[in-house]
Amino acid sequence: MLYEDRVDALVAPKGALEMLSQDEISRMSDDSGSLHSLFRSCALAILNCGSDSDDANAVMEEFKDFDIRIVQQERGVKLQLKNAPASAFVDGKMITSVREMLFSVLRDIIFTYHEYNLERGLDSASSDKITNVVFELLRNANVFRRIQSPDMVVCWGGHSIARNEYDYTKRVGHQLGLRDLNICTGCGPGAMKGPMKGAAIAHAKQRVHTGVYLGLTEPGIIAAESPNPIVNKLVIMPDIEKRLEAFVRTGHGIIVFPGGAGTAEEILYILGILLHPKNANVPFPLIFTGPKESADYFEQIHAFIGDVLGAEAQAKYQIIIDDEVAVARAMKQGLEEVRHYRKAHQDAFYYNWKLYIPEEFQHPFEPTHENVRGLNLNFDQDTHLLAADLRRAFSSIVAGNVKAQGVAYIKEYGVFEIHGDRSLLAKLDALLQAFVRQQRMKLPGSEYIPCYKVVTD
Amino acid sequence: MLYEDRVDALVAPKGALEMLSQDEISRMSDDSGSLHSLFRSCALAILNCGSDSDDANAVMEEFKDFDIRIVQQERGVKLQLKNAPASAFVDGKMITSVREMLFSVLRDIIFTYHEYNLERGLDSASSDKITNVVFELLRNANVFRRIQSPDMVVCWGGHSIARNEYDYTKRVGHQLGLRDLNICTGCGPGAMKGPMKGAAIAHAKQRVHTGVYLGLTEPGIIAAESPNPIVNKLVIMPDIEKRLEAFVRTGHGIIVFPGGAGTAEEILYILGILLHPKNANVPFPLIFTGPKESADYFEQIHAFIGDVLGAEAQAKYQIIIDDEVAVARAMKQGLEEVRHYRKAHQDAFYYNWKLYIPEEFQHPFEPTHENVRGLNLNFDQDTHLLAADLRRAFSSIVAGNVKAQGVAYIKEYGVFEIHGDRSLLAKLDALLQAFVRQQRMKLPGSEYIPCYKVVTD
Amino acid sequence: MLYEDRVDALVAPKGALEMLSQDEISRMSDDSGSLHSLFRSCALAILNCGSDSDDANAVMEEFKDFDIRIVQQERGVKLQLKNAPASAFVDGKMITSVREMLFSVLRDIIFTYHEYNLERGLDSASSDKITNVVFELLRNANVFRRIQSPDMVVCWGGHSIARNEYDYTKRVGHQLGLRDLNICTGCGPGAMKGPMKGAAIAHAKQRVHTGVYLGLTEPGIIAAESPNPIVNKLVIMPDIEKRLEAFVRTGHGIIVFPGGAGTAEEILYILGILLHPKNANVPFPLIFTGPKESADYFEQIHAFIGDVLGAEAQAKYQIIIDDEVAVARAMKQGLEEVRHYRKAHQDAFYYNWKLYIPEEFQHPFEPTHENVRGLNLNFDQDTHLLAADLRRAFSSIVAGNVKAQGVAYIKEYGVFEIHGDRSLLAKLDALLQAFVRQQRMKLPGSEYIPCYKVVTD
Amino acid sequence: MLYEDRVDALVAPKGALEMLSQDEISRMSDDSGSLHSLFRSCALAILNCGSDSDDANAVMEEFKDFDIRIVQQERGVKLQLKNAPASAFVDGKMITSVREMLFSVLRDIIFTYHEYNLERGLDSASSDKITNVVFELLRNANVFRRIQSPDMVVCWGGHSIARNEYDYTKRVGHQLGLRDLNICTGCGPGAMKGPMKGAAIAHAKQRVHTGVYLGLTEPGIIAAESPNPIVNKLVIMPDIEKRLEAFVRTGHGIIVFPGGAGTAEEILYILGILLHPKNANVPFPLIFTGPKESADYFEQIHAFIGDVLGAEAQAKYQIIIDDEVAVARAMKQGLEEVRHYRKAHQDAFYYNWKLYIPEEFQHPFEPTHENVRGLNLNFDQDTHLLAADLRRAFSSIVAGNVKAQGVAYIKEYGVFEIHGDRSLLAKLDALLQAFVRQQRMKLPGSEYIPCYKVVTD
Repeated sequence: MLYEDRVDALVAPKGALEMLSQDEISRMSDDSGSLHSLFRSCALAILNCGSDSDDANAVMEEFKDFDIRIVQQERGVKLQLKNAPASAFVDGKMITSVREMLFSVLRDIIFTYHEYNLERGLDSASSDKITNVVFELLRNANVFRRIQSPDMVVCWGGHSIARNEYDYTKRVGHQLGLRDLNICTGCGPGAMKGPMKGAAIAHAKQRVHTGVYLGLTEPGIIAAESPNPIVNKLVIMPDIEKRLEAFVRTGHGIIVFPGGAGTAEEILYILGILLHPKNANVPFPLIFTGPKESADYFEQIHAFIGDVLGAEAQAKYQIIIDDEVAVARAMKQGLEEVRHYRKAHQDAFYYNWKLYIPEEFQHPFEPTHENVRGLNLNFDQDTHLLAADLRRAFSSIVAGNVKAQGVAYIKEYGVFEIHGDRSLLAKLDALLQAFVRQQRMKLPGSEYIPCYKVVTD
Repeated sequence: MLYEDRVDALVAPKGALEMLSQDEISRMSDDSGSLHSLFRSCALAILNCGSDSDDANAVMEEFKDFDIRIVQQERGVKLQLKNAPASAFVDGKMITSVREMLFSVLRDIIFTYHEYNLERGLDSASSDKITNVVFELLRNANVFRRIQSPDMVVCWGGHSIARNEYDYTKRVGHQLGLRDLNICTGCGPGAMKGPMKGAAIAHAKQRVHTGVYLGLTEPGIIAAESPNPIVNKLVIMPDIEKRLEAFVRTGHGIIVFPGGAGTAEEILYILGILLHPKNANVPFPLIFTGPKESADYFEQIHAFIGDVLGAEAQAKYQIIIDDEVAVARAMKQGLEEVRHYRKAHQDAFYYNWKLYIPEEFQHPFEPTHENVRGLNLNFDQDTHLLAADLRRAFSSIVAGNVKAQGVAYIKEYGVFEIHGDRSLLAKLDALLQAFVRQQRMKLPGSEYIPCYKVVTD
Repeated sequence: MLYEDRVDALVAPKGALEMLSQDEISRMSDDSGSLHSLFRSCALAILNCGSDSDDANAVMEEFKDFDIRIVQQERGVKLQLKNAPASAFVDGKMITSVREMLFSVLRDIIFTYHEYNLERGLDSASSDKITNVVFELLRNANVFRRIQSPDMVVCWGGHSIARNEYDYTKRVGHQLGLRDLNICTGCGPGAMKGPMKGAAIAHAKQRVHTGVYLGLTEPGIIAAESPNPIVNKLVIMPDIEKRLEAFVRTGHGIIVFPGGAGTAEEILYILGILLHPKNANVPFPLIFTGPKESADYFEQIHAFIGDVLGAEAQAKYQIIIDDEVAVARAMKQGLEEVRHYRKAHQDAFYYNWKLYIPEEFQHPFEPTHENVRGLNLNFDQDTHLLAADLRRAFSSIVAGNVKAQGVAYIKEYGVFEIHGDRSLLAKLDALLQAFVRQQRMKLPGSEYIPCYKVVTD
Repeated sequence: MLYEDRVDALVAPKGALEMLSQDEISRMSDDSGSLHSLFRSCALAILNCGSDSDDANAVMEEFKDFDIRIVQQERGVKLQLKNAPASAFVDGKMITSVREMLFSVLRDIIFTYHEYNLERGLDSASSDKITNVVFELLRNANVFRRIQSPDMVVCWGGHSIARNEYDYTKRVGHQLGLRDLNICTGCGPGAMKGPMKGAAIAHAKQRVHTGVYLGLTEPGIIAAESPNPIVNKLVIMPDIEKRLEAFVRTGHGIIVFPGGAGTAEEILYILGILLHPKNANVPFPLIFTGPKESADYFEQIHAFIGDVLGAEAQAKYQIIIDDEVAVARAMKQGLEEVRHYRKAHQDAFYYNWKLYIPEEFQHPFEPTHENVRGLNLNFDQDTHLLAADLRRAFSSIVAGNVKAQGVAYIKEYGVFEIHGDRSLLAKLDALLQAFVRQQRMKLPGSEYIPCYKVVTD
């Protein structure tokens, strides 16, 4: 039997966008220009969720005849799809989770963008304003739940990891799920998928029917890291900075698996925040873990953190190697402390208002060649500020590796130049070289061509 | 045993206002000035829902030491009550429905007012804009439901009606409820309470657990017409015009029981709209009904409509006397036509976007002496425009009777003068005299002192 | 419009009897003989639930052409009704609660009777066996719930009470309902309906959607005391003894309102049990209450109890006059003690296994002339045994008043003769005379003709 | 970190056995003798569900110090476990699904056995009686659902299959799940687990939260084929004959994957029934399928069926090779025919009363050497009777392979002797040899020693 590989369809929304006012419908239907292009590529990432590629351009090329249009009707909007990947359909009917995610994209890209003028990036917004916008975007996506106890474990780690590392992330997720904990990740493959998969099976065993698999992504990366189908709550945050803030304010604890530049960015983000004096007393369980083969990896990371941020930073996390039960128990205990703290401070469980995020971590950083060159990677500043700029350095490398805009910059202007303190850069370079060697920068099969060079002054 | 009649309490929200951003909390906490006074009096109306008085001033006087304040907390807002009526509490705990309604008031008065600048009344808003705001207020109050069939029956009629009339409204409500229909009223006593009570018992008999008893009120009248405790969905619309629009766009059919000036206003409102050529084909079941003792009343109304708006207007409704089963069956059949029409036009069931409301019926009419004098009550205009100004005339009388602002105007400047065509005014005067005689203007016990005079030029 | 007063219908079951094996269906379909006659009259009581009469014979006469048959189908049973009262239908469709109750009758009369051979009355069963059967009948009727706290308040009292007494039962029910308590009664009119009505409204106010209105009845009395439509859980126990056991084992506390012989029977039943030494430490809240006009009534009852059972019996209850809030608070506090006791003894909340019921209160007592004559109403025995025979004396009077079998006996053989101690009988006679004077024996309108005489030896 | 491998625990029931009468509790607590031994071994199979072994004896040996006892308490029964496998617990708390299954075992082994005297095997029961018992056991296990459309797909196939076959069963299950279909299997590993796993993931994608994974097993085999953890409804039928009847009466269609003797038994069972003239018109979708590597396997089965049962039997199924989408579509279409047929005949969806099962397929067949020798495997009889005895032959081989009783027989008396028609036996032998070669008799790793020999007379 031969099956078609393209489908045309008219799809009605479910949930949030079901009941719109005429005003809202007309605002949304103006999908011309850059927003439409953004929406189209994100939608394609969702529809193509059966695929395993992280090469957004290849996907775009394969489905270049795909289009999606918002159709305005009296009762609401519908989506008109042309030449959509057939894998998103069963006997001509769109798979429910795909349909949900598609309308999550519509909600977050078109609808929310108009509401908040997010296209302009909230450039001049105050720190408070940004925190409020992050809150409102998450609330609008129905992420907040009334819970009795903190239970949302953020799992960070690479999209391109070894098989044994992937299996380990599943085992950790399974142990978390057996303890009724939920999972939040960046919602792509690898370490973002494994914990959800493990937790889903564990939830089934524990008859937990309300398991949450929260995926937080951003327009720039969704095409390269398609949401895995286990995700049952998807939010497209406007940029990496708001996405990171969403992670640390909705998550109650963080587990870091092996990964590449993106994971390093995440580590520096959370350490930079926790190092700020205002957060000295805020409990935040943070665990680095991997299978025994990854012990060296974490030793290297641990040493790098000690070298550039000091022992104080090292005290913010614990490293547990090859023991998923110990990880889950340590996290459970850490969450208990979070519970006590929030109770004592009458803080909400669903959003960590109390955590102070310095604005250096909030304002969008555009990885242009000029901006990268301007980073201050020297020891002549507060530790959390150094962490902030190191975070930006890694962020630029991620952009140069997989984000469309970054890839285009590199193509046009050559690699990013990273300047700074000689000894610091030497350690940074060694770390990055190791990532390359371990194939953490890109999915195996394609050779990695660096998008940066380290320049010691 | 002696029980206290005042209670102090700190109350947490339930539902809509549970998860607020810090921005929203701080916006809401600024409850100084006129909004706070408005909120306080509406809150008192809710808390005093055990009472039967329609004399808002007397209630205000009795509980003049009552106060309510918004308390800003990390996790959200709470309400701090001082000297609240004890009838709203059981063993020191606020009755759940009262708590729900209290937060409906907070949501609609403080929260929504800030969002929409409703304090300024949307004065210059376009017709479309108003319709959208009405939609968004109702959606925000969670009024819209996904339904299989139109089922919301609006019941209009007086708050001050005879016992036999009240019993009849219960019997009609009971028959509607037995047929799984829901009830929407202005949420005060009399004809606004009876149908809900009858329907609630019928729903229990039919094991319908999702019965909706929707109360639509406005700040100006809530104090005089406290929501009856059966109301399980309460919305405070900003003014009578938006409230009337909410009735006709969320309701699928209307039943009119005997009443006074307010009921006459409602009749003229719906007839004025249905008479507009653009609505010629829109099905809208409209039934006038009462017990056999009310037959004369409806004959008089019917004659008045014939005299001033003509036979075309008379064709828009049917009159059924003393037969609750026939009323329920006719309504059920009318709703079936509505269903077919909406299906055929792909219109939503939950909001009647298709109904055209001329802007003469939408813009707020402030019943000042000057505005009342300026009404055009002559036959030299389109019928629907005459209906619009007649509606305003009755609206002014309601204001002069029970709304705080109107009562104050009358106190200061004397009665309203209504000008217009001699024969028209004669009929109008006769109708109003009858309302007075039948004690429909005010609850029995207090003598009615007219707030208007008819002036034939 | 003229409406029909008879309806023919074929009705499918809902709930318990939906999925039957072919064996069960064929067992049930043999509905010939006495069971069919019993089923028919109980079914008629349900269908006629709109009526207010307590004259079962009159109802039977009015609907003598009514019939109901079990129809065996492949998928299950259906009920074929001929000439059923139209009040049980809306536009030809049976009201859901009526349908539910109809199948409760089918379940308890035909289905359960066959399972347990209840037709023969479990005559020789042991005390334990009876308690187990009562449990299994209630479980089969889905009466048991998983609850956090004892909350089932049994309300006893007359079916024929004064208007002010009825209004008071509603007020008490309302206060119980406001405190999230549920109601269990004998499910007829008067004091069996008022508390449910009050509680239902209070539950609506408290947004309690799971309120239970449990009606426990018996085939002999259901026709005279049709279940009121608020009852949402109906069980037909095989006889008065098992019905009384069901009351005290599922109820967590009892409130006694004014009533006649039936209420006196109930009072003697619970006192007889509580007086047994084995129950000395079992907490069981028992409150006698009525409006202030009923103060005399309870004084007389109280004196009678003191005279025949002594001060120990008087210590088992409290009397609260005209204070519904005090009643509700006292009950709530009593239930709290029950909660502690059950917790401490690891006893279930849903069935009071711990309560010891002497078998004198369990075995069916058939009120024949011989049996009545044989009652021992002398002081030469244990108090709880005297209570047992007094209970039987009152039970006989109820039977002679309203139960079909008893009424037939009286018609054939004349009044019952009650023998016993002279002083005791004098007090008993005075009490019964008062019941007659106060019209507690029969609904007002019909003159009461005594079915007994007191014979002092 | 070292973790314990044994746990002691006291476990309370959830669901069915929560509310028991004292009678029932005392009946159940008598767990001495053979029932206790049966219960213990089944419980161990459940608790050990993490394991992959099909060697029941090895498991028994490993956990020989395990014991389980029923503890009678006032409120109900509890289970006291000693030295239970730690894999059934998380931080000392039993995994919910394990707990559910454990009480399913208690319900079906102890409770139901006592109710139905199942220990004696219903030996003399009539065909109707057996069908009713099967119904009542399934109903008691809460298997029946009110459904709109037939949706239960039985998947048969080997517990010991090749990796590519297993993956294919997952793909088929996935396609079934994407079409909202549910899965019923024998609940062990291999082809009994794969379809459930695939369907579970598909249900998650389709947001189907009510997916049913029904496992039907029997005491004799549960230890060798531990229920996989996806099973969310488990029933232990008393013997293979009732288990097979449960499959064909609750399932709406059957898919057969590659397997060994057990699968052959199942094929002969369903074909024998469908070949009976009374079932000529009963639609019953039956599909044989496997990956392309299994094409030969099904060719051989197909030829064997043609040879012994004829072309009529071959017409009862279709074979689809290596096309999971085609399988799912064909099943969906077949179920549509079932729906029409049941509708037309007013038959229930939840139990196939209409299917005629000849009593030769119902009465328990005990695989003793004498009984096996007595089988009639000749062509001198009705086809469905030949199928019945062939079914028994395969059943004996399954028993000799993995069931405790059968294994013991073989150990004591040597292999079973199968007699019959020479040509028939030759084909049978060839088929069995192929099963051995393909390692379908036993999980790989252990060498298969035949428990039978074919004896041509």
